[in-house]
Amino acid sequence: MASITNILAPVENELDLLTKNLKKLVGSGHPILSAASEHLFSASGKRPRPAIVLLISKATMENEIITSRHRRLAEITEIIHTASLVHDDILDESDVRRGIPTVHSDFGTKIAILAGDFLFAQSSWYLANLESLEVVKLISKVITDFAEGEIRRGLNQFKVDLTLEEYLEKSFYKTASLLAASSKAAALLSHVDLTVANDLYNYGRHLGLAFQIVDDILDFTSSTEELGKPSCSDLKKGNLTAPVLFALEQNSELIPLIQRQFSEPKDFEYTLQIVEETKAIEKTRELAMEHAQVAIQCLENLPPSSSKEALKLITKYVLERLY
Amino acid sequence: MASITNILAPVENELDLLTKNLKKLVGSGHPILSAASEHLFSASGKRPRPAIVLLISKATMENEIITSRHRRLAEITEIIHTASLVHDDILDESDVRRGIPTVHSDFGTKIAILAGDFLFAQSSWYLANLESLEVVKLISKVITDFAEGEIRRGLNQFKVDLTLEEYLEKSFYKTASLLAASSKAAALLSHVDLTVANDLYNYGRHLGLAFQIVDDILDFTSSTEELGKPSCSDLKKGNLTAPVLFALEQNSELIPLIQRQFSEPKDFEYTLQIVEETKAIEKTRELAMEHAQVAIQCLENLPPSSSKEALKLITKYVLERLY
Repeated sequence: MASITNILAPVENELDLLTKNLKKLVGSGHPILSAASEHLFSASGKRPRPAIVLLISKATMENEIITSRHRRLAEITEIIHTASLVHDDILDESDVRRGIPTVHSDFGTKIAILAGDFLFAQSSWYLANLESLEVVKLISKVITDFAEGEIRRGLNQFKVDLTLEEYLEKSFYKTASLLAASSKAAALLSHVDLTVANDLYNYGRHLGLAFQIVDDILDFTSSTEELGKPSCSDLKKGNLTAPVLFALEQNSELIPLIQRQFSEPKDFEYTLQIVEETKAIEKTRELAMEHAQVAIQCLENLPPSSSKEALKLITKYVLERLY
Repeated sequence: MASITNILAPVENELDLLTKNLKKLVGSGHPILSAASEHLFSASGKRPRPAIVLLISKATMENEIITSRHRRLAEITEIIHTASLVHDDILDESDVRRGIPTVHSDFGTKIAILAGDFLFAQSSWYLANLESLEVVKLISKVITDFAEGEIRRGLNQFKVDLTLEEYLEKSFYKTASLLAASSKAAALLSHVDLTVANDLYNYGRHLGLAFQIVDDILDFTSSTEELGKPSCSDLKKGNLTAPVLFALEQNSELIPLIQRQFSEPKDFEYTLQIVEETKAIEKTRELAMEHAQVAIQCLENLPPSSSKEALKLITKYVLERLY
């Protein structure tokens, strides 16, 4: 399997440029915001969201030559994602994200609220300047979806009758909405047929869902460095994800454990044991694979290109994280 | 002098409709958001922002007949204003606003962050659906300005070399930007000449500045019910407003008092005494009158109508609050 760096080779230069631009776009002139944006945008992450926007831009343009509006859309996507992280970290009281202190732990809750507001506002403004009402509508819906998703998450904690559909809806709001809308927006900026644009919306949607489902599996299976065992952080907070929902379908003994919020000794260990016995992780893996598969099918109408191949490989890479 | 209810008579019906619509527009279907929006939008305030948008809409339309897009713009203006209040109250740690508990004191900081994000996002979405890129650009700039203003306020606390210009800039971001942009936006929706639209931008701008300056005077002069004396809440927090800036121009003895943040006994009383001796309140009042006067001049090119008269009376009403 190719490394992510290899997969993203068709947009490597554009991603380098994007990282430089992000710091310029945000917070110049404000000592505090500059510090926060330096902090936010200097992390050398993989930036999968703008990478996908750039790949779709290339895959839908003749000779894979993209415009400055495509590049700006990719930047906006990353700014919105970052804004949502800044506010999420306050809501989750997370002090660290990927080994780096969060804005609210470094600068305090107030600065973090303002920094998030400012980033959301900046993204709306840059968005309006893309001069496409269709794109403004698509992307501004995403920001509503973020808030909607967070509210649902709050309402559904420890809710044992959560359905798989509701779980997928929640995952859409949290992760897939931005990918879906920005994928379609990139296509619209290329002036493709609406069918193709809608296919790409669904590409983003299913890729996003696969990504979130894999993330939810990793919360159960991958050991964190500090603990030496899986953190199961979602389960502890009562965010019921696919593995628990599949286990609940098979074994009703889980219900009281969750309802009493694992308050008695061994509740949590017993829950993990039931998840294992019911093969819930395997079922969740299949669910992720299905969505990744649908995502690939959504690319069918695109002409052949290196970017199209990269978009396919990304869906496979998402699943590879499991092995 | 007419009461505000009389002044707003030309848009009374529209304002009633707006109040009903706001609750429908926001948060239906979410137990928590419904509660917050019920809370936010049931307060029977005067809603000066949508009132001004509606009056400008009427004043710029033939026979004063406005469209549903004008009405929607008025609603968006109030949603944005409310979103900014919800986040401001967290930043200021205010538990009460106009006698009503704030969202963050009733529902907690997390819900307040989400409610604000949701309201900002909703407003962007409704904005995009007004189908005017020009209006989207104008209004999304306002949300950036709010964050910008809050950040500057944080940076400038107890800064004795703050200039009057910087103060006015801060006041623009906080109050006048929304009024200016939404006044111009209402005019654009009426398809008036750009000159008239820009005049109305300046009407909103100067009216907003006059309003903020008056507010800053009242912080020094009007007794709060609980204290029986002026709260001077801005001064205590180190937000230097026009009265202190005028006093600083006349009497440099103020400088050390502010720099040590009124930490020694009598510092605060002595500051108020200097403000009085230097006639700083009177000078600030003149500043407010100047801006109100310019606001009225900006209406010159509008054809005569009852709405135009109401727009003039509002500027006078803003100053009347001082007496």
